[in-house]
Amino acid sequence: VSLNEFSLIQKYFSSSGESKGVTLGVGDDCAILDIPEGKQLVATVDTLVEGVHFPVSASPADIAHRSLRVNLSDIAAMGADPHWFTLALTLPKVSESWLCDFSQALLSDALYFGCSLVGGDTTAGPLSITMQVLGTIPIGSGLTRGGCHEGDSIYVTGSLGEGAAALALLDASVSIESEDIRSRLLQRFYRPEPRLKEGACLRNVASAAIDISDGLIADLGHIGKSSGVGANIEFDRLPVAPFLLGMARQACLNDWILSGGDDYELCFTVPRRNKDFIEALIHSGELNAFYIGEMCKELGVRCYDSRGQVMELKKSGYRHF
Amino acid sequence: VSLNEFSLIQKYFSSSGESKGVTLGVGDDCAILDIPEGKQLVATVDTLVEGVHFPVSASPADIAHRSLRVNLSDIAAMGADPHWFTLALTLPKVSESWLCDFSQALLSDALYFGCSLVGGDTTAGPLSITMQVLGTIPIGSGLTRGGCHEGDSIYVTGSLGEGAAALALLDASVSIESEDIRSRLLQRFYRPEPRLKEGACLRNVASAAIDISDGLIADLGHIGKSSGVGANIEFDRLPVAPFLLGMARQACLNDWILSGGDDYELCFTVPRRNKDFIEALIHSGELNAFYIGEMCKELGVRCYDSRGQVMELKKSGYRHF
Repeated sequence: VSLNEFSLIQKYFSSSGESKGVTLGVGDDCAILDIPEGKQLVATVDTLVEGVHFPVSASPADIAHRSLRVNLSDIAAMGADPHWFTLALTLPKVSESWLCDFSQALLSDALYFGCSLVGGDTTAGPLSITMQVLGTIPIGSGLTRGGCHEGDSIYVTGSLGEGAAALALLDASVSIESEDIRSRLLQRFYRPEPRLKEGACLRNVASAAIDISDGLIADLGHIGKSSGVGANIEFDRLPVAPFLLGMARQACLNDWILSGGDDYELCFTVPRRNKDFIEALIHSGELNAFYIGEMCKELGVRCYDSRGQVMELKKSGYRHF
Repeated sequence: VSLNEFSLIQKYFSSSGESKGVTLGVGDDCAILDIPEGKQLVATVDTLVEGVHFPVSASPADIAHRSLRVNLSDIAAMGADPHWFTLALTLPKVSESWLCDFSQALLSDALYFGCSLVGGDTTAGPLSITMQVLGTIPIGSGLTRGGCHEGDSIYVTGSLGEGAAALALLDASVSIESEDIRSRLLQRFYRPEPRLKEGACLRNVASAAIDISDGLIADLGHIGKSSGVGANIEFDRLPVAPFLLGMARQACLNDWILSGGDDYELCFTVPRRNKDFIEALIHSGELNAFYIGEMCKELGVRCYDSRGQVMELKKSGYRHF
């Protein structure tokens, strides 16, 4: 890739316009950013590699949306507000139409989430996208994995299992006839909804939070490990879309829900003193979340079935294409 | 790469210890960082791909040093102080010895530069390293490319041409017998010195600055373009190490110095009112920099030879292995 081709690339990513807190954006050696008084900076980074985190068949717009949203999900899990991001884009060759589609999708999605591109690097190599998202939280209000205690209630947002079902659809290990379901699952994979609103309303309320990327059991295990406690959850309380219940053989469905990952919902814990507040938010419709169990003294995560038996869990796995 | 193998990787990168301004470091969804009052945040990102930005033969320690320092050079060019960085590491397979060497070299080099690792992501794929470095500057004192005027003096730090000579050595387009020179050039390539001290002392003094990664002519061209002016420089004033003059055929040497890139020196401009101050810093030995020419009204960059003739310049090129 010659220097001229890189100028071409610059062209597609420098249209960010005036953005809040950006003293200097794309195009210099660094961005210069203003952190408002009373706020702390949060930073997260994620890489998506072609053939590993998305299939070779993915469209430029799909790749753009998924890359940004997977990163924003980490911001949501801290209860933070996203402001800026940098992009490191590695491309096998420079294709104007690919870049045009990718950058349009990326910049419009970023605008929707109130987040602006402030810097980037483009290199030649196998297709991969690394984004770092920067955001802020009011000082001291960040939601970590390490703050919960025995007796805290466990909740999840949205619905579980669709991330894994989408992966199964993409790697053709299941076939789905309904066009509606296919498109809902692809939407779920390529445009996961970062739970930013939910995360923000959990500040100073939840005792711990994480986004579900490795699978509920694994991610709840991270909370437990960081907090020095364990968790008991009830399978029948887990939120699962009815269409998903209809499409899967039971064994496979349980894995999707418990250890499939890629759901990008929030799993969070609430101390007893804040439980009424959370339940009120849920009942009023302001927070789409479900009580699924309690943190306990005994380390590890156990899931109980409808007969009160501990379910045997497959090891949470990391999925490749 | 399984989840267990990723835990292994975590092991190598979580030894950062207590660091300034880090409320929460490696291991949660995001890092939480404190920006001191009166400071602005600066952010930069760079990707290094195996076979493109370093040869397949490079050692893990070499890759670690080069990745970090190339990023720190951008921080230096803003006159900023580095504080934190994130690492996105894509690896074809998990090798404990590779990770051990890479992480040790990286963390010790980062410590040397007062910079701590606050987050990361490890993925399976072709070897590539993306780092984002975060730093701070006193509000309003960032050195950009766009602040200089006609009549400002142009300076460069250190010495030019060795980055390109090292590339020529690595791709075997030159052969060098002296072990001393070989090792100096490899050092220059794998451990470029980010000019952080120099950058910091140029705050509120220089009118524009950039680090020389694309080559002097190209990078000075970026300053000129951003500032709406041009530049005239004198070839005989450019700082070049004597050993380099000895080793190269003349035509090739000029390219190395003017458009070779990878030198990671600073090129900066100084308005007339600050010139005495800069010259005093240089004469006292506090700043290792050289006057090379002046910004002018006529756009573009011209380099004059000893006879006062404009030299013909090869187009600045981007080098692959």
